[in-house]
Amino acid sequence: MLGYRFMGTAHSRALGAVRQLGAALEPDLVSICGRDPEVLEEARARLGWAEATTDWHEQVADDRVGLFVNGGPNALHAEPTIAAARAGKHVLCEKPLALSAGEAHTMWRAAEDAGVVHATGFNYRFVPAVRLARKLVQSGELGEIVHFRARYLQSWGWDAPPDDWHFDPSVAGTGALGDLGAHSIDLARHLVGEIRSVSATVRTFVPGRRLDDSFVATVEFDNGATGTLEASRLARGRINHNAFELNGTKGSVAYDQERMNELQISDGGAFRTVLEHGDWWPPGHIIGWGDTFTYEYLHLLNAIAGEGAVPPDGATFEDGYRCALVCDAILRSSQSGAKEMP
Amino acid sequence: MLGYRFMGTAHSRALGAVRQLGAALEPDLVSICGRDPEVLEEARARLGWAEATTDWHEQVADDRVGLFVNGGPNALHAEPTIAAARAGKHVLCEKPLALSAGEAHTMWRAAEDAGVVHATGFNYRFVPAVRLARKLVQSGELGEIVHFRARYLQSWGWDAPPDDWHFDPSVAGTGALGDLGAHSIDLARHLVGEIRSVSATVRTFVPGRRLDDSFVATVEFDNGATGTLEASRLARGRINHNAFELNGTKGSVAYDQERMNELQISDGGAFRTVLEHGDWWPPGHIIGWGDTFTYEYLHLLNAIAGEGAVPPDGATFEDGYRCALVCDAILRSSQSGAKEMP
Amino acid sequence: MLGYRFMGTAHSRALGAVRQLGAALEPDLVSICGRDPEVLEEARARLGWAEATTDWHEQVADDRVGLFVNGGPNALHAEPTIAAARAGKHVLCEKPLALSAGEAHTMWRAAEDAGVVHATGFNYRFVPAVRLARKLVQSGELGEIVHFRARYLQSWGWDAPPDDWHFDPSVAGTGALGDLGAHSIDLARHLVGEIRSVSATVRTFVPGRRLDDSFVATVEFDNGATGTLEASRLARGRINHNAFELNGTKGSVAYDQERMNELQISDGGAFRTVLEHGDWWPPGHIIGWGDTFTYEYLHLLNAIAGEGAVPPDGATFEDGYRCALVCDAILRSSQSGAKEMP
Amino acid sequence: MLGYRFMGTAHSRALGAVRQLGAALEPDLVSICGRDPEVLEEARARLGWAEATTDWHEQVADDRVGLFVNGGPNALHAEPTIAAARAGKHVLCEKPLALSAGEAHTMWRAAEDAGVVHATGFNYRFVPAVRLARKLVQSGELGEIVHFRARYLQSWGWDAPPDDWHFDPSVAGTGALGDLGAHSIDLARHLVGEIRSVSATVRTFVPGRRLDDSFVATVEFDNGATGTLEASRLARGRINHNAFELNGTKGSVAYDQERMNELQISDGGAFRTVLEHGDWWPPGHIIGWGDTFTYEYLHLLNAIAGEGAVPPDGATFEDGYRCALVCDAILRSSQSGAKEMP
Repeated sequence: MLGYRFMGTAHSRALGAVRQLGAALEPDLVSICGRDPEVLEEARARLGWAEATTDWHEQVADDRVGLFVNGGPNALHAEPTIAAARAGKHVLCEKPLALSAGEAHTMWRAAEDAGVVHATGFNYRFVPAVRLARKLVQSGELGEIVHFRARYLQSWGWDAPPDDWHFDPSVAGTGALGDLGAHSIDLARHLVGEIRSVSATVRTFVPGRRLDDSFVATVEFDNGATGTLEASRLARGRINHNAFELNGTKGSVAYDQERMNELQISDGGAFRTVLEHGDWWPPGHIIGWGDTFTYEYLHLLNAIAGEGAVPPDGATFEDGYRCALVCDAILRSSQSGAKEMP
Repeated sequence: MLGYRFMGTAHSRALGAVRQLGAALEPDLVSICGRDPEVLEEARARLGWAEATTDWHEQVADDRVGLFVNGGPNALHAEPTIAAARAGKHVLCEKPLALSAGEAHTMWRAAEDAGVVHATGFNYRFVPAVRLARKLVQSGELGEIVHFRARYLQSWGWDAPPDDWHFDPSVAGTGALGDLGAHSIDLARHLVGEIRSVSATVRTFVPGRRLDDSFVATVEFDNGATGTLEASRLARGRINHNAFELNGTKGSVAYDQERMNELQISDGGAFRTVLEHGDWWPPGHIIGWGDTFTYEYLHLLNAIAGEGAVPPDGATFEDGYRCALVCDAILRSSQSGAKEMP
Repeated sequence: MLGYRFMGTAHSRALGAVRQLGAALEPDLVSICGRDPEVLEEARARLGWAEATTDWHEQVADDRVGLFVNGGPNALHAEPTIAAARAGKHVLCEKPLALSAGEAHTMWRAAEDAGVVHATGFNYRFVPAVRLARKLVQSGELGEIVHFRARYLQSWGWDAPPDDWHFDPSVAGTGALGDLGAHSIDLARHLVGEIRSVSATVRTFVPGRRLDDSFVATVEFDNGATGTLEASRLARGRINHNAFELNGTKGSVAYDQERMNELQISDGGAFRTVLEHGDWWPPGHIIGWGDTFTYEYLHLLNAIAGEGAVPPDGATFEDGYRCALVCDAILRSSQSGAKEMP
Repeated sequence: MLGYRFMGTAHSRALGAVRQLGAALEPDLVSICGRDPEVLEEARARLGWAEATTDWHEQVADDRVGLFVNGGPNALHAEPTIAAARAGKHVLCEKPLALSAGEAHTMWRAAEDAGVVHATGFNYRFVPAVRLARKLVQSGELGEIVHFRARYLQSWGWDAPPDDWHFDPSVAGTGALGDLGAHSIDLARHLVGEIRSVSATVRTFVPGRRLDDSFVATVEFDNGATGTLEASRLARGRINHNAFELNGTKGSVAYDQERMNELQISDGGAFRTVLEHGDWWPPGHIIGWGDTFTYEYLHLLNAIAGEGAVPPDGATFEDGYRCALVCDAILRSSQSGAKEMP
């Protein structure tokens, strides 16, 4: 694994817990990579990895490594991941997959050409309530989808220091768009289908910031549905409000990440608050954000073992690429003032 | 008063109750006008009007009439209202003020030229929780506004008969846009300020419908804030979900018409659920939708009496006109695929 | 009517609005009675009564009066109401019906003997969501009831002045028990049935208070259900939290007065949030606390007209008496430390 | 560890994850014990234990074992736990600690006499929102506590098979009281203080059941506060509704286990919905039910290492015993119909 901070912690924890879910493969934590040797060693011990290295090339060359997990900075997604795939390792890379759609496309093609299993870290697909939403869409219980609206609102952007890496173009690529909006876009594609056009305004409100801290967009889907997308790091009172609502001809669902064990479901009548947290624990014993990674690994390890994806529907590098296409179209639309196609 | 159905009932009830709030003038219910004599007579008796007529010209010519209330079909807003204003009567006209921005402008100028008090029926301005939101904006407690998002969602559109007047262009002018969207646009202007540009998609989903049943839009305000607006009559599970959220540099508020006695308030930290229902009843004894009209009349009658508007900030015909400009820009943007200025 | 403050305002408003609901009789506001002539005259004008008097005997002797409404202090419930009933007037008396169960019984018998229509002002029976709850119970959709839990929590008790009449035994009789608990007890009886035994602790927390500011109780119903009842004026953060939940063998409902247009309904599965506000306005246009009185008068006037009670199920003086029996048993249990029968 | 089903899974997962939280000791999973060899071996592999045995005496005699975790049936709590303590092993035993208060007392004294660290598995003490509630109480921010109300409602009792072990006296001891009520009682003691008296009705509604499926109780605390406690497995629509509310002279808090990352906080005014999920993840990334065990082990391992309890305030065997005293008093009160002292 490359990366040892927030994402490194989340991935390590999930790799240790996935055994309980009965994954087809059992992971060995071979090697963790980072830049700062001292902090890295502390992380290695705390997160339970056997070895640590400051050079990812060693991991790519290591025969013991079967899966390369990239949880490093966005700017360090493409090169190591492509190298790992070319070395025959399966690859899981965090989102946003790359700094641009072009770079994401290169990663996708490289992984495809290498014939390895590739996954983009859209972990929210594995939230049981989101999976239930998708099931209701695919079974036809909601009818044909007419509207999708999503917003991902946080508030820490007001107080972030000027040199926060989240706002550094060379590290992060984009701001709220790639960090938060990418999740909403992936859920839009996952639940409704491909996006045909976007019309957007991307905005940096805080003086001195080099990357966007918010955007608003309307979207049209290939299937005719309309929608709104919005993300902001400047919404006071909102902590991690990743919410969406989906209206079909027969019913609706609504979701909020801060209450991620609940799905609001309308079968045409009043919304019910359904507790949906998978089958890890008995009814009503909710799971946490970290558990979405465990389900992600259950899916990935089973896919690698060729046993079929359980739970299904994880995001591949193609999904990472198609999400990046929408992000790029949103940026173009904001500049042109017109609708743009991804 | 012209009109005796939904709006006629709401206005009559409020005219009878406004006395309790200590309005500077006490209304006499002189005459009600409608087309169908039989139904009209039943309504007259039930709603408490002294006389009924099928010809609004009689009301306009009636010296006893000091205030002309137009709660009739949208297509019947302009002519009688202008005639009443020219006859020196104060005028209150329901929203949308007219079938187009041009017609609304004519009404506004006519009322101004006649020197009468004119009001557009944006009753949601008089919801105590909305007034609290405005107070928090104007006092600076929320700081400068950066985002506004509003949605007005209903679901009856799926089941409405093909000949429902709401979808008849000659009667209603527009569909969800003028009926629902107009409220959101007025609240946007009331709380944030003038809208500089819109980018929108207006859509008719139900086959055979002659007017829009939904729209999505992004907006930019003169003060730099960005926002999203959306309305639909096709959102299953939503009954009268007129909701908005407003984020400022210091705090936020969120509101939902279905829980119209509550305002969610963040002073930068976690949202509080504040019960705000005015001072009619003791704390916690909530008011209803119909009571917003009573407050509207309190404001209007005090304005007519020249005692100053209490509560302040009602919508004039200018507000009705400026709202119509935004509606027209939304329609244009949907056709052009580009940003449009109101 | 006797009384012109809080209850006087609520009753006057409802008497003026009930016409819209199509009541079988149309009320004339003949005379209002109070002690302070100056304030009374102001109230008379504001509330729309033809005459004012400081002597209720005049009203009782007035042939024009067909219905005597007692919204005065608790200590003034019995004598004028009994006199009015004996004079052949129909009577509506606010809750708690009397200062003790014995006094309530006398009122009930007097009204019965006089053959007049008698009603106790348990207005929450007329909340549409409460009526829906009762309908679900009576239709058997919830199955047999096993649990009922109610709490009525406010917080103003901390800050009330020492001489507040709510805590004056000679005026109010009891404190939180008769004021708030009476509502919960009436709803318990209305929805579940007669209470067989109570076990309670009644407590005065604020030093110097002469009446209780809270109580807790467990109850057993004749039909075998168990329950908890609680009321307090000392629950910080609670404004008018009159809430109950009812569990049956097949389903459950939950209600909160602060969101009185909603009923949480479980048919065995997840709770749905059902908007239920009667048919005054279109769906989603909620009613307010004051409107419950209008429905109360619709019921009462129809009952007086002999047209059958629509909506049904109002509280009679017998209900006021039986509620008082439970209140008395709660007080006895708190003293004895044992279960007591009403 | 003894036990390999629900509790075995929860404990194993937490023992594997506690490393991430920086516990002073790192657990080795030495041996797991159960009755059915086949199922046990599957569990051993899935849960990550080195060895399995069907005889807990082996574990007690095993020098490698430093901590004995008892997650087995209630009837198997006392003997193995006492034996382990006497063998010098630290002990963690699930709740309810024993089948009766007497048995619990024996366990407590045995652990004390052996000088080992002892813990009762009241994991809800380690929910970050509950810890915040306790901090607000102890810091005096809520003032003096006047009311505590708790209910723990589930609904699976209607559909459980007649031979479900939860209703078998020889295995479970008590029904809803010991299983659900014990949690509420522990939280009451933890947050408010010792309970002076109870008045309760314990009831078995489902015919043929040998243990209670619900109870209701009022309580008085040593510090003068009053409260209600209730638990049921028969509350349709409720899944794992472990909720409490606490009112003080200055403020209040309210909590619901189904939304365990939220604490409703009133500082005297309107309630705020505060997201409180500890510091494992960034703000707004919630934890799950399983994570409460990880915090429990962080506490326990630090206590064993003598580094002080971080987080503090776990439940000892004394707490398990004092909770059992209250349970026994509730049973006695239900039989006597009078107040009983624990």
